[in-house]
Amino acid sequence: MRALLSVSDKTGLVDLARGLMALGAELVSTGGTARALRDAGLQVMDVSEITGFPEMLDGRVKTLHPVVHGGLLARRDLPGHMDAIAAHDIQPIDVVVVNLYPFRETAARPGATRDDVVEQIDIGGPSMLRSAAKNHDAVTVVVDPADYDEVLGVLRGAAAEDLRVLRRRLAAKVFAHTAAYDAAIAAWFAEQEGDRFPARLTLAVERAQGLRYGENPHQRAAFYVERRGAGLGALVQRGGKELSFNNLLDLEGALLATDPFADETRACCAIVKHTTPCGLAIGATAREAYEKALACDPTSAFGGIIALTVPVDDEAAESISRLFVECVVAPEFTPGAIETLGRKKNLRILEGRAPADPRALDVKRVRGGLLVQDRLPAVSVDDGWTVVTDRAPTDEELDDLRFAWRAVASVKSNAIVLARGGATIGIGAGQMSRVDASFLAGHKARQLGHDTAGTALASDAFFPFRDGVDQAAAAGVRAIVQPGGSVRDAEVVAAANEHGMAMVFTGVRLFRH
Amino acid sequence: MRALLSVSDKTGLVDLARGLMALGAELVSTGGTARALRDAGLQVMDVSEITGFPEMLDGRVKTLHPVVHGGLLARRDLPGHMDAIAAHDIQPIDVVVVNLYPFRETAARPGATRDDVVEQIDIGGPSMLRSAAKNHDAVTVVVDPADYDEVLGVLRGAAAEDLRVLRRRLAAKVFAHTAAYDAAIAAWFAEQEGDRFPARLTLAVERAQGLRYGENPHQRAAFYVERRGAGLGALVQRGGKELSFNNLLDLEGALLATDPFADETRACCAIVKHTTPCGLAIGATAREAYEKALACDPTSAFGGIIALTVPVDDEAAESISRLFVECVVAPEFTPGAIETLGRKKNLRILEGRAPADPRALDVKRVRGGLLVQDRLPAVSVDDGWTVVTDRAPTDEELDDLRFAWRAVASVKSNAIVLARGGATIGIGAGQMSRVDASFLAGHKARQLGHDTAGTALASDAFFPFRDGVDQAAAAGVRAIVQPGGSVRDAEVVAAANEHGMAMVFTGVRLFRH
Repeated sequence: MRALLSVSDKTGLVDLARGLMALGAELVSTGGTARALRDAGLQVMDVSEITGFPEMLDGRVKTLHPVVHGGLLARRDLPGHMDAIAAHDIQPIDVVVVNLYPFRETAARPGATRDDVVEQIDIGGPSMLRSAAKNHDAVTVVVDPADYDEVLGVLRGAAAEDLRVLRRRLAAKVFAHTAAYDAAIAAWFAEQEGDRFPARLTLAVERAQGLRYGENPHQRAAFYVERRGAGLGALVQRGGKELSFNNLLDLEGALLATDPFADETRACCAIVKHTTPCGLAIGATAREAYEKALACDPTSAFGGIIALTVPVDDEAAESISRLFVECVVAPEFTPGAIETLGRKKNLRILEGRAPADPRALDVKRVRGGLLVQDRLPAVSVDDGWTVVTDRAPTDEELDDLRFAWRAVASVKSNAIVLARGGATIGIGAGQMSRVDASFLAGHKARQLGHDTAGTALASDAFFPFRDGVDQAAAAGVRAIVQPGGSVRDAEVVAAANEHGMAMVFTGVRLFRH
Repeated sequence: MRALLSVSDKTGLVDLARGLMALGAELVSTGGTARALRDAGLQVMDVSEITGFPEMLDGRVKTLHPVVHGGLLARRDLPGHMDAIAAHDIQPIDVVVVNLYPFRETAARPGATRDDVVEQIDIGGPSMLRSAAKNHDAVTVVVDPADYDEVLGVLRGAAAEDLRVLRRRLAAKVFAHTAAYDAAIAAWFAEQEGDRFPARLTLAVERAQGLRYGENPHQRAAFYVERRGAGLGALVQRGGKELSFNNLLDLEGALLATDPFADETRACCAIVKHTTPCGLAIGATAREAYEKALACDPTSAFGGIIALTVPVDDEAAESISRLFVECVVAPEFTPGAIETLGRKKNLRILEGRAPADPRALDVKRVRGGLLVQDRLPAVSVDDGWTVVTDRAPTDEELDDLRFAWRAVASVKSNAIVLARGGATIGIGAGQMSRVDASFLAGHKARQLGHDTAGTALASDAFFPFRDGVDQAAAAGVRAIVQPGGSVRDAEVVAAANEHGMAMVFTGVRLFRH
């Protein structure tokens, strides 16, 4: 048995090599790997000894040689192949252990020049991995140190069927690995070229968590991350059952809802159901923010997901614990809060910050493909805002409009939000017409006992007709913030003026589907 | 100048080779490519002539040799590199033209065995492409015949800056190509292993269309397909402006809405706004189905997307043309329909069928990752349905329930649909509580003049409390279909019995977020 080892990650290398030698393997290696093995007292041949060709071009060409690739690719079941390699004094290679420099991390290293990054593109490693994986009927190829123990175990057991199954699984892993590796290189090149939407796009993700099921119980599912600890994967679970698919989806909705309030000095709380907030508020304390958010629509809040932008203290936890809640996510929890919330055994407690990467691409699935777009940029207030009515908003109204505009960004379209005093009091979400969204926001507010007189209204897109404004006026709305841009803006502004309302155009639309 | 050519797609090969020779290039090639060039009367060296090593193992090892890779990888700016290759009689290779067998197509070929597929995994090609792309400062690497003309043009022009820019772009293309190639192999392995959610997942897509902008005007976007002509990419545009991001998203929503009616002998029509139907109906003709769908909510239908499951004839087109519509999608249009609809210059006419691949994975974006799940399986009726009330639905009610259940599948959650006579008459979509969805469906129906007495109701998930049922009863609903499964099912069924309703449990939830 001949084993070829060439790894960047030296974890477990020496133990693996010892194990292989105990199984009678002859070790072949390169550069740093060979040194590490020799330092451990193991006998190793350099690749150049078997190829008869020196390592050249600063290591760019070491293993790209027929002696290596013939040894990897020869089919053991074909006498023609075995005769051919024998005629060239090529010995079969039975085990290949190769892992690659983590390209993405190298590219992200501060101060890395273009040349540094390009130099890190591994050529020989992927070639060996791919040759070995192609010939997985005969070759055991190991790309991940986590597999070393299992590999040694199966090789020791020497059961043909176990080895066959293992080799197939390892080969599958190789191609998943090289695909992700080249995807990272392609992404780097595209970024260098300023090519946001290249002709070919490859999204490589790693499974972070299997899930019991998907959006519905008859759909299987898993949660994948771009890299360990990114985004939602950065949250640490401090209590409760395992997260479900819909929990993760709603956590994203809840964090989207609080994102625009990240710079807010006060606490912000969002309560989310079906990815849309049913209550959003800011307050002096976590508890106040939560209770204001809850007051918006306590009926819908049942079974919701709560996000807070400040640590959850004992008082907030006490208040939250009175509601049936699926998840609470916050940057921190006091020990008392963990204890209080932890008593509700189903309540999932998630600690940490999971800021979204503003450069990341958003994707939406359609049949046969993906719609890919920039993430929605951070929602800004004041910048580019224009008062379009005779009456300008009062300071108080302007505060409410600023709040309402940030709130409406996370509500599913068509979306209308009524707000006052740093809290939503009516949310009209997911409607197929703006007038319905407007009606719904007012209806829900009144139904839940809120006084809608003097409230501010935010609309995620322009009013196509004056009907939505008339409806808002009837509910007592005094100030409106909306993108503007309808062909009937004049009609809409005239309606606002008739009702004595203040109206602000933002010039920015906030659709969320 | 030395050029190495080894292609599976021979398109444009001879012209390119002639062009390169005219620029003084010496050609090196392999197997079928060399034969094709010689047949055209061109002088070509075999790779084995330059490596001094025969092609072996049935072509598995041809180019994996230091003479090839040293010639590709040597940095021309480093005397050490140039001396090293000279010492081994290695000549630099300046142009590499390689393309790979389309793996996915091979794997999909009927009767292809595992061995056939594995044999198609190209090892030498990707290695040469990657070496050349790494050394793109000095090497022009061409993976796509579509680039041949531009490459010849730039080489002829001999402007250093043009060549530099071209080489970078081509190198970027190589890694995008190899990433997608290995992603296809990885997907094949995962499928072979029955591994639906492998540890690493790589989604490779091709840009089908740039888009003016994304969900909102300040987001850039593009539409990518898994392969040419798949899914929405299979639709042929017969008129109107370019499709927008939201058009594509709504087309998906509209097709989702009509999917459950694909086997229906009658025509089905969905009108979609913000990815959710605001009207859905079946009828004897395209026109009847459309007019019944429109009648549900003509206000919301303004600016909608219309999907029909049958050809659009002159009469249907005439009727549709009276409404402001963004898109119409149908399997076919009569010439008269194209003419009528084509007069509305903004109306996008899309012809064709775009069935969803039931094996495809659905993905939802969250920060830092993707939630991946099976597509929602086809919505079935009757199968597993259980009558849970004292009263069973009448035949007419059962027909309405069957329709309503298929209709509610595409409505955003929480979703309640009221239906009668093969048409929705009230759709409560996107609500954060079921009771709100129930209220909304009834309210909208009444507001638009529909008589809700005697209607059937479908709920996409169970009623957590009896309030939604009471609300439905107040609106005159006589029959309900819902998954069941609440801890309070007994209370909910009791409420239905009190109201003399028929209720069916499906055992299947239909959340759509």
